[in-house]
Amino acid sequence: MFQTYDDPGGPILGRKHLPRLRKALKEAGLDGFIVPHEDEWQNEYVPAAYDRLAWTTGFTGSAGAAVVFADDAAIFVDGRYTLQVRAQVDGSLFQYREFDAGSITAYLRERAPKGGKIGYDPKLHSPDSLDRLRSAVEAAGAQLALLAQNPIDAIWADRPAIPTAKVTLHKEEFTGESSTSKRHRLGGAFKGQAAAVMLTSPASIAWLFNIRGGDVARTPLPLGEAVLRADGTADVFLAPEKVSPELREWLGNEVSLRPSEELPSAIAELRGKRVRVDPSTASAWYFDQLNAAGAEIVRGEDPVVLPRACKNAAEIEGSRQAHRRDGAAVSRFLHWVASEGQTGKAQEIEACQKLEAFRQASGMLKDLSFDSISGAGPNGAIVHYRVTNKTNRKLARGSLFLIDSGAQYLDGTTDITRTVAIGRPSKEMKDRFTRVLKGHIALSRVRFPKGTSGHQLDALARMALWEGGLDYDHGTGHGVGSYLGVHEGPHRIAKFVNTQPLEPGMIVSNEPGYYKTGAYGIRIENLQVVTPASGIDGGERPMLGFETLTLAPIARELIIRQMLTKDERDWLDAYHARVRDAIGPQLDGDAKAWLELATAPL
Amino acid sequence: MFQTYDDPGGPILGRKHLPRLRKALKEAGLDGFIVPHEDEWQNEYVPAAYDRLAWTTGFTGSAGAAVVFADDAAIFVDGRYTLQVRAQVDGSLFQYREFDAGSITAYLRERAPKGGKIGYDPKLHSPDSLDRLRSAVEAAGAQLALLAQNPIDAIWADRPAIPTAKVTLHKEEFTGESSTSKRHRLGGAFKGQAAAVMLTSPASIAWLFNIRGGDVARTPLPLGEAVLRADGTADVFLAPEKVSPELREWLGNEVSLRPSEELPSAIAELRGKRVRVDPSTASAWYFDQLNAAGAEIVRGEDPVVLPRACKNAAEIEGSRQAHRRDGAAVSRFLHWVASEGQTGKAQEIEACQKLEAFRQASGMLKDLSFDSISGAGPNGAIVHYRVTNKTNRKLARGSLFLIDSGAQYLDGTTDITRTVAIGRPSKEMKDRFTRVLKGHIALSRVRFPKGTSGHQLDALARMALWEGGLDYDHGTGHGVGSYLGVHEGPHRIAKFVNTQPLEPGMIVSNEPGYYKTGAYGIRIENLQVVTPASGIDGGERPMLGFETLTLAPIARELIIRQMLTKDERDWLDAYHARVRDAIGPQLDGDAKAWLELATAPL
Repeated sequence: MFQTYDDPGGPILGRKHLPRLRKALKEAGLDGFIVPHEDEWQNEYVPAAYDRLAWTTGFTGSAGAAVVFADDAAIFVDGRYTLQVRAQVDGSLFQYREFDAGSITAYLRERAPKGGKIGYDPKLHSPDSLDRLRSAVEAAGAQLALLAQNPIDAIWADRPAIPTAKVTLHKEEFTGESSTSKRHRLGGAFKGQAAAVMLTSPASIAWLFNIRGGDVARTPLPLGEAVLRADGTADVFLAPEKVSPELREWLGNEVSLRPSEELPSAIAELRGKRVRVDPSTASAWYFDQLNAAGAEIVRGEDPVVLPRACKNAAEIEGSRQAHRRDGAAVSRFLHWVASEGQTGKAQEIEACQKLEAFRQASGMLKDLSFDSISGAGPNGAIVHYRVTNKTNRKLARGSLFLIDSGAQYLDGTTDITRTVAIGRPSKEMKDRFTRVLKGHIALSRVRFPKGTSGHQLDALARMALWEGGLDYDHGTGHGVGSYLGVHEGPHRIAKFVNTQPLEPGMIVSNEPGYYKTGAYGIRIENLQVVTPASGIDGGERPMLGFETLTLAPIARELIIRQMLTKDERDWLDAYHARVRDAIGPQLDGDAKAWLELATAPL
Repeated sequence: MFQTYDDPGGPILGRKHLPRLRKALKEAGLDGFIVPHEDEWQNEYVPAAYDRLAWTTGFTGSAGAAVVFADDAAIFVDGRYTLQVRAQVDGSLFQYREFDAGSITAYLRERAPKGGKIGYDPKLHSPDSLDRLRSAVEAAGAQLALLAQNPIDAIWADRPAIPTAKVTLHKEEFTGESSTSKRHRLGGAFKGQAAAVMLTSPASIAWLFNIRGGDVARTPLPLGEAVLRADGTADVFLAPEKVSPELREWLGNEVSLRPSEELPSAIAELRGKRVRVDPSTASAWYFDQLNAAGAEIVRGEDPVVLPRACKNAAEIEGSRQAHRRDGAAVSRFLHWVASEGQTGKAQEIEACQKLEAFRQASGMLKDLSFDSISGAGPNGAIVHYRVTNKTNRKLARGSLFLIDSGAQYLDGTTDITRTVAIGRPSKEMKDRFTRVLKGHIALSRVRFPKGTSGHQLDALARMALWEGGLDYDHGTGHGVGSYLGVHEGPHRIAKFVNTQPLEPGMIVSNEPGYYKTGAYGIRIENLQVVTPASGIDGGERPMLGFETLTLAPIARELIIRQMLTKDERDWLDAYHARVRDAIGPQLDGDAKAWLELATAPL
């Protein structure tokens, strides 16, 4: 099993570690220290060996920061983690503060002692955020102190091992393009602007060199760096333990494999060159090093981001295969919920384990793509819920059960949410579910002109909820990688402005929801890929649309038929017919019979 | 009659005036001159006395610019004016160039002679655009030269009179709030930030002091300036000819009326003070003067813009009255089109005149709110068409006729577009019309959470067109003033990002369209006001919605009934019932009988 159900954080950590950190800071002559959640690679899932925020505070959420002074400390988390932070972090040690643009700087201005020195680890901050922190600290009459070593790492007695998983080769049947072709294509594109690009994001390294790693849970990332030159040649920096002879051969003679320790000297070799680097993913350390080396920095987006998002034919076909396989596992699971899961005795963790077992049974599962969100009743209303042995609830009759999960296969990454009734749902539950479904269908069916961005489509998914005076407080869709991150940019569908137009080949989730605090949560999520919408009768302009990738029944028992228009019913019936055709042949017995009913026309 | 149908511009103007301007530039030692369309007040409708672009080139569109060198010249217009500029401007004298961010600067970089002096009038450029022009000119090795007088004004022999219409008092029954209250409310709001605000926009002067003017066609603006101090007192600068004793009394003793010539000395009085000024509406001249005076400039939005946009109860009720009155005139006109207009002999100008006469007959018409767009057949496909004696077309049978018009009444400003069939419409015309109507209905019915901006709703108006591979290349909605500008910010509904949330009381147009070049145009436009959407059964969040203000039948003969959902048909029937109830009692005879049919349930 990949997922575990203990709670790795908790107030005990802060109580144990905060005094040790303060002692170390005092010995180093520091008056304070900033502890961001981010690691050296800006990972979304931070390996345990780099989760310094959890070590310091006990908080294990996916975003946040802490600031520690000799006589005060604060933890900063956003609205998603208001409850979690209170459970995991001792409020007598850390003030709870909002994690937004001005909040950390306000705290620094308030509390940094005049003449004091506030330490920071340059590998953990972007240059822009560091500028803001510096202004705040200086406004308080103190100063920032760049530290050569992170003081937490120096005193972290039982620090988990630094991950050194062997890097694997990701074959062209899955990638559809050789690394040579990618490197020359990208190098040619930035040639006029820079001599080289500094690649600091592991997902970019993975895509560009057609490799994967095992350093990070849930995403097959190799932690490493690279320099790509305009002529298509490159240096890749990896810990030697991760390197096999096959990898050397795979990378070919245009790519030099170098040990991670050589990164600083490799940067020094860039003296006098124009080097592009992405301030949104590369830490201040790179800017310091490049400046010190006498390179000319060109700030610009990581050139891998957009090509990686636009999947090619092989990647799209891979994703279709992955979704057919995954849809069978999810359908088996939904059959289990519809039968054994209805007794009132099944539990959230049991459900996760069942689903994981069905995915394992395919023999192809490499990992989950994230820890499953398995929320029964009121736990379903917690948008970023993660079940632990302590919070584990029964799937009670008369409630809803929401499960958001995904898998990593060599041919694709999946992410699906289904909400089902346990026992008899209320009229209100069905009304809300049908509104969410109407939004999901609108965003699935829409055609839109080339050049349209995600924020222009977001309202379609919310309209039916808005009509009822309802809404949800999360985005509607995120990009998804190809056997890579389940959250991948640059595109997004949300209220927030995102100026990246949707391009053919981009995979994006479609996941409107509704949450009633203390009662239940609803979310319906499919992945869909942007496709040209050709052959429209009488059409005049280049239009795009979506092909739905995810294949699993949507709970018919939660739909109020009369609330759907004929077009919406037609969409659902056609979708269910696709599910039946693709998944049916993979099932047998009761599960197959159940699928027939679950996908029958409305 | 307000509207005229001659063509005030034309190639003859450029042929006559360009040589004179070049001679004047040479005598002044200048190598070039920049001629923007804007006047000193950034008016949308530029009074003839300030239309220096038309004088120089012959072009009369609402946006553009020219640059004149000794041996070359160019005119810059956007996509709306591609045809018009070719008709009005001699291409052997002026290069036609695209009017976009980089185009004028690119031309200056190309053509400005090394060591040359390029003149500009500081009252006609925003400080930001001037910075861009300066960089371009300096990149060419030339320099910008600030001119104390506009060289065109000096040689403009037959210049129309500078407008000096008497300023009128706009009563509280229409404004709903006294000037005293407005001044103290706004002054109190910026008190902490600035000692005074420099108001340079005539629409802001009109709103703040509850006055109107007659200096500009189609918008009752008084050309003038004002300084509002944080304590609510103010100076207003107007040409003495515009001032009556009643005006002095109306403004009260907290407001000093001063002649326009005193503006520079009044700015000098601001020495040492923090003065807020809006770089998007105030010209570079103000920044130069304030700097020279030793004032501290605070860049910030004109504080009148948002309060002016959010209409109060009196303004909304006034708008309802204005729309009931205007709807009767438009309905009489649509009856005329449905009867005499069907012969195939009626003409575009005749239609405009009929409509204007019906509006005049109310006895309340102060002006049109813009020149009517009266487009028969292919002329309807020209989005910014303005009929002249030369372009006047017949309303031919088997075609569509589009008319976009509006009126200025003391209690409100209107703007309405209707498209009707002349003779028998084709299946395609009906399909397109029904799609446009579906978009219009979606944007009329939508409810949305507080905080939503116009760009988030834009797709609703396009979705049905997108589904057919179609779209339109203009915005979906603009703000509208209260007996003020028919185009008013800061809100907008369009593809372009507009971060101003829609607030209760904002009036906005809803005008999706479809245009088939060379064949026909379709647009359906109503004005609607943002209202709280209270009393939603089961609703949980503060929601907003729209109340439709415009009242006139929508062409039933152009609708394909089966393409509408039941909700859409219900909307249309309910709208037509409102029209019948509000307009019916104002009509009689044939017109009344026609209205009954035109508003019957679908």
